[in-house]
Amino acid sequence: MIDAKNVEGLAGIVAGQTAISTVGKEGVGLTYRGYSVEDLAREATFEEVAYLLIDGALPSRTQLEDYRHKLMSLRTLPDKLKTVLEQLPAGTHPMDVLRTGCSALGAFEPESAARGQVDIADRLLALFPSILLYWLHFQNNGARIDTASDAPGTAWHFLELLGGEAPSDLDERALDVALILYAEHEFNASTFTCRTIASTLADFYSAVTGGIGALRGPLHGGANESAMQLMQKFHTPDQAEQGLLEMLARKDLIMGFGHRVYKSSDPRSEVIKPWANKLAEAHADQCLMPVAERLEAVMRREKNIFPNLDFYSAPLFHFLDIPTSLFTPLFVIARITGWSAHIFEQRAHNRLIRPTAEYIGPPPRPFVPLAKR
Amino acid sequence: MIDAKNVEGLAGIVAGQTAISTVGKEGVGLTYRGYSVEDLAREATFEEVAYLLIDGALPSRTQLEDYRHKLMSLRTLPDKLKTVLEQLPAGTHPMDVLRTGCSALGAFEPESAARGQVDIADRLLALFPSILLYWLHFQNNGARIDTASDAPGTAWHFLELLGGEAPSDLDERALDVALILYAEHEFNASTFTCRTIASTLADFYSAVTGGIGALRGPLHGGANESAMQLMQKFHTPDQAEQGLLEMLARKDLIMGFGHRVYKSSDPRSEVIKPWANKLAEAHADQCLMPVAERLEAVMRREKNIFPNLDFYSAPLFHFLDIPTSLFTPLFVIARITGWSAHIFEQRAHNRLIRPTAEYIGPPPRPFVPLAKR
Repeated sequence: MIDAKNVEGLAGIVAGQTAISTVGKEGVGLTYRGYSVEDLAREATFEEVAYLLIDGALPSRTQLEDYRHKLMSLRTLPDKLKTVLEQLPAGTHPMDVLRTGCSALGAFEPESAARGQVDIADRLLALFPSILLYWLHFQNNGARIDTASDAPGTAWHFLELLGGEAPSDLDERALDVALILYAEHEFNASTFTCRTIASTLADFYSAVTGGIGALRGPLHGGANESAMQLMQKFHTPDQAEQGLLEMLARKDLIMGFGHRVYKSSDPRSEVIKPWANKLAEAHADQCLMPVAERLEAVMRREKNIFPNLDFYSAPLFHFLDIPTSLFTPLFVIARITGWSAHIFEQRAHNRLIRPTAEYIGPPPRPFVPLAKR
Repeated sequence: MIDAKNVEGLAGIVAGQTAISTVGKEGVGLTYRGYSVEDLAREATFEEVAYLLIDGALPSRTQLEDYRHKLMSLRTLPDKLKTVLEQLPAGTHPMDVLRTGCSALGAFEPESAARGQVDIADRLLALFPSILLYWLHFQNNGARIDTASDAPGTAWHFLELLGGEAPSDLDERALDVALILYAEHEFNASTFTCRTIASTLADFYSAVTGGIGALRGPLHGGANESAMQLMQKFHTPDQAEQGLLEMLARKDLIMGFGHRVYKSSDPRSEVIKPWANKLAEAHADQCLMPVAERLEAVMRREKNIFPNLDFYSAPLFHFLDIPTSLFTPLFVIARITGWSAHIFEQRAHNRLIRPTAEYIGPPPRPFVPLAKR
């Protein structure tokens, strides 16, 4: 056994093997199945990446077309799931909507010999935008939208359901790239949660429902929402610099910077920032990106810390007219691909994940009967 | 970093500190907050144990009465939650019902400054029997039962909702003891799941929903259902011996035996077995316990392995006329106390739980455009 003080949070502890991705591996960086995330973000679409993660290899043209058609066919919500979603009040955290929707789907379409893990992975990938935006429109204006669509990809489907019309090529591709970058990231807290749940041989939905819960936390997926809230506090770069310095002096937690594994930069940030800039230009933004860039500069200068993926995802999503409360749900819509691949992998080489603890509580003591307390 | 082969499943890895329980600690055994589980099962009630786990100290008489009254006041389901439960089909796995019910409650009664973690822990403890049995009666015969009750404890409330009448003293106390034994068990897979989710600073419901998912698996909470199914295959001890030997020859997985942490016996099994025997006597059982005891004897002789808590809990629950599909949900109803204590503890000394992995996938490779695949 290792001294517990060294492993709080399991930092640096190898908890298993994976063939899915490398994160910050020296000289390799972030790769999915051996392909660099930079290449994938530049040359592939999200559906190719989803196929790659789940299947292990890039699809041929025919395989990709079949895959897109399969996903298209899976976008309709069961009626009972609609009824469940309609019960969730307008003020509900959208992550609670996805968590409850995923759990309920496990009751309507349980895993079985006839409905295997690949089918469920595809169904969840296709259905999460439908769950989220059906609920949103119903709570916003009582509309029961039709989530069926022949949109070619997830980014398109999401933006079409959100805004009611087909997105521009630029908007669609910007979101597609963000989904690629969010798709997979080794043994992060939500993926590790999925694997721990899967290690008890629980069903697929249980594992994913747990992953959604873990991703909801501000130290994980919730960071992009916090980054947006930070940027929106300020109207000019100078204001941002002053405000941030005050927050640092108060030792406030600043979200969207640094990473447990990356020590000098997040390769995903380098990819997402130019896309945020393209959208800023298209929207003639004079405020949000200048503020964000000043926040980055001050954090580098004062804390020697770099922005992570969540930081520039925030303005990118904002320029796409995506409400801030949907930022973390978008992370789910992308990450279901990585989670699925990890659940498959855990199941294929399973051992129950059950660590132990260092006991620091009271020593053995005699019971005191109620009458003597 | 440690060689990944040594830590698959994190076996023997200390993942943090706890003041809540010891499991199999040499010379100490299983203790909750320093009290031996044998003393607690003999002298305390489940509500005293729940209070002990959550508060850290045994309650005074007044504190216990207040606690019982608080739990009594929290047994009524919100109407919208009833509607959600009514959507879940009759064939739904009852663990999916609890998982979905818990997640949905997080939308109706979200964690907030006004509704803190202790209130939510109490609410879930009070409400899980209501969620489960409201759904069961609705799906079995369309009845919308009233789950409000002034039953003094959880065991009584559960048995009353299940059978429609107050339980006998023997039945009530037998279930109470089982709940005490199931209440807490250090960093098992579901508790570790709760802590991992809580470590992202996600809300309380997310952590518990994940815990339910992990507990659902047959390598964890699902073991008591599997043990029951095994026992019911046989009508005589000799038949059981022959059948078990055949299963062992086929290398079938036999549930309800052995444990990741305990190496020579499970102290909870020593406590639960006499209670199973008392109920067997009250029911003039000539079959189930003799079969179970022969299975135990054969497993000890052939595999040198001991029954764990799940093994004799199975006949105990069965004698209480509890359907087998509710065995694992009963585990949730008890373990919510331990989970809650661990979520409090994780939050009080938080560090994000994020291990790393050994990469065994393809080496870096160049991207191949779609046209060339």
